[in-house]
Amino acid sequence: MRAVIVGTSGHYEYAFDASKCGVKVVAVAPADESENADACIKKFKELGHEPVLVEDYTKLLDKKPDIAIINSVFSKNCELSIYFLEHGISVFCEKPCASGIDELERLEKAYKESKERYGTCYAGMFGLSYEDWAETIRNLVSDGTIGEVRMAEAQKSYKLGNRELFYSSRETYPGTIAWTSIHGIDWLYGICGLKFDSVYSVQSSRENCGNGTMEVTASSIFYSRDGVIGTVTSDYFRPSGAKTHGDDRLRVVGTKGIVESIGKKVVLIDKDGEREIETHSPEMSIFAEFVSEIQGKGKCRRGAEYSFEVTRAALLARESADTKKEVRF
Amino acid sequence: MRAVIVGTSGHYEYAFDASKCGVKVVAVAPADESENADACIKKFKELGHEPVLVEDYTKLLDKKPDIAIINSVFSKNCELSIYFLEHGISVFCEKPCASGIDELERLEKAYKESKERYGTCYAGMFGLSYEDWAETIRNLVSDGTIGEVRMAEAQKSYKLGNRELFYSSRETYPGTIAWTSIHGIDWLYGICGLKFDSVYSVQSSRENCGNGTMEVTASSIFYSRDGVIGTVTSDYFRPSGAKTHGDDRLRVVGTKGIVESIGKKVVLIDKDGEREIETHSPEMSIFAEFVSEIQGKGKCRRGAEYSFEVTRAALLARESADTKKEVRF
Repeated sequence: MRAVIVGTSGHYEYAFDASKCGVKVVAVAPADESENADACIKKFKELGHEPVLVEDYTKLLDKKPDIAIINSVFSKNCELSIYFLEHGISVFCEKPCASGIDELERLEKAYKESKERYGTCYAGMFGLSYEDWAETIRNLVSDGTIGEVRMAEAQKSYKLGNRELFYSSRETYPGTIAWTSIHGIDWLYGICGLKFDSVYSVQSSRENCGNGTMEVTASSIFYSRDGVIGTVTSDYFRPSGAKTHGDDRLRVVGTKGIVESIGKKVVLIDKDGEREIETHSPEMSIFAEFVSEIQGKGKCRRGAEYSFEVTRAALLARESADTKKEVRF
Repeated sequence: MRAVIVGTSGHYEYAFDASKCGVKVVAVAPADESENADACIKKFKELGHEPVLVEDYTKLLDKKPDIAIINSVFSKNCELSIYFLEHGISVFCEKPCASGIDELERLEKAYKESKERYGTCYAGMFGLSYEDWAETIRNLVSDGTIGEVRMAEAQKSYKLGNRELFYSSRETYPGTIAWTSIHGIDWLYGICGLKFDSVYSVQSSRENCGNGTMEVTASSIFYSRDGVIGTVTSDYFRPSGAKTHGDDRLRVVGTKGIVESIGKKVVLIDKDGEREIETHSPEMSIFAEFVSEIQGKGKCRRGAEYSFEVTRAALLARESADTKKEVRF
């Protein structure tokens, strides 16, 4: 299979195992004037691919790709996805899948039509859910070790560093809830199995070191009719002296145990005590699962319907913070 | 000074250092038919006091107390406080100070009148704020080490165990937000310096092992006009095999650093790195501060106005969960 990379602002590294999946990256095109493809091309050459630079992304179609790996400036990703889907090309796209509900609905329609007509697939870049700690917690939840999940809390904390200009405006940045908290939402939904019936959020862009409207703190509460609570907090105040860029955490409270990850370690507490659990990798990477779905061999766990659901939840969470009102799903 | 203990359902242990404070515990009275004073009397005898049993708490007045240590069944504490304040006796009472806003307003009025007429004092049993980790974080916040606080997250997690019957009904139990989350609210307000302009909460009593209406999960978001976010979660799912009864946590996100306590340890991250901070005790215990305020020598940091404010915040947070609406302060 042949893949092209559209834009270079996001997480194209989730496709670094393309060769292993039988996929050749044949071209890279910037999709925004702020983007330069050099580093991306260099990296894929190192990985054994022979990508060429294509200045106009619409010309990528000439390369007869099976897959478009889309990760441009956030606000462009959804339109780019629709464009490639309409041309019968499967899409692996940066999250959030869309920057607004209207856009998301257009994407869903485009995907449905493309699926029917060409059999295309779609997946969102929810790669953090494929980290070892996440896979380990997912299994402890799904095998019933902690009983019925009643509450879960996710944390995202990042260093602010120097952000590209496009973070500074809602025109180009979907907001911290849609860009960062969305990972926590993915974990609540896909790892903990939460359903979302309402959400309430707050956010603030104060003290954001001159990054325009970019929010640097946010907190959301998701609630389901059966009383399961999910809380997600995000901040960009992780100090420069911290060992790692991010401080991802997930704590899942079940009727028979509590499992938690801090610093990529997993700790389980149940009736038998408190102990660290050895983590394990998922069978396949997110990109491998996506390729496998295109080949009709399997199902990507972060496929179209799933990624659209999580994006919708993130956009409604953002709407709650923007309007300062609880939003019902 | 002479103290009496009214009810034995709460945290009278905060007065275990009474002797050191120059206070003699002279009598103990149950205030609810479910209460038995034997263990309490035995304990204070071991501590060198000579408390007698008084069956009718109104007869405690005959013992000429300066202080009433009130910790009966939750729903009775406010009325008991008002009763002793009206008789010119200073009150050290279990939190929440009241079970509802109306009751709280009557307490505030009674306190004000008693203060004017007799010079009495009042303090709420927010003893967890006097633990070493809490004092250490308070100082790191107030001395500016972490800069301006922009977000804080508090966690309460308890073993459910076997709960007395009065936890099973809102008539006798003020709800988990008012009983448990209130500690997190105290930390946000008194340690992190948050102001509260609105609150949104959810809660659930599902899977509470037959404890009536007692909520076993809750989550609240407090927000201030200047965009500072406070999140508090509580649960009663801490597994029986956990090393300790409770898992109290506080994480404070500032513009110059993040300080956090888990398992009573304190860790600071700032531009210079990540390190554990040696904890230190407050100068005085909560009871010692209270006695010092009665003596006109100092000010209890969990005195009347403070304790009423935190109780109000907890009751509004509970109202939000009960009505499923954001509540403005």
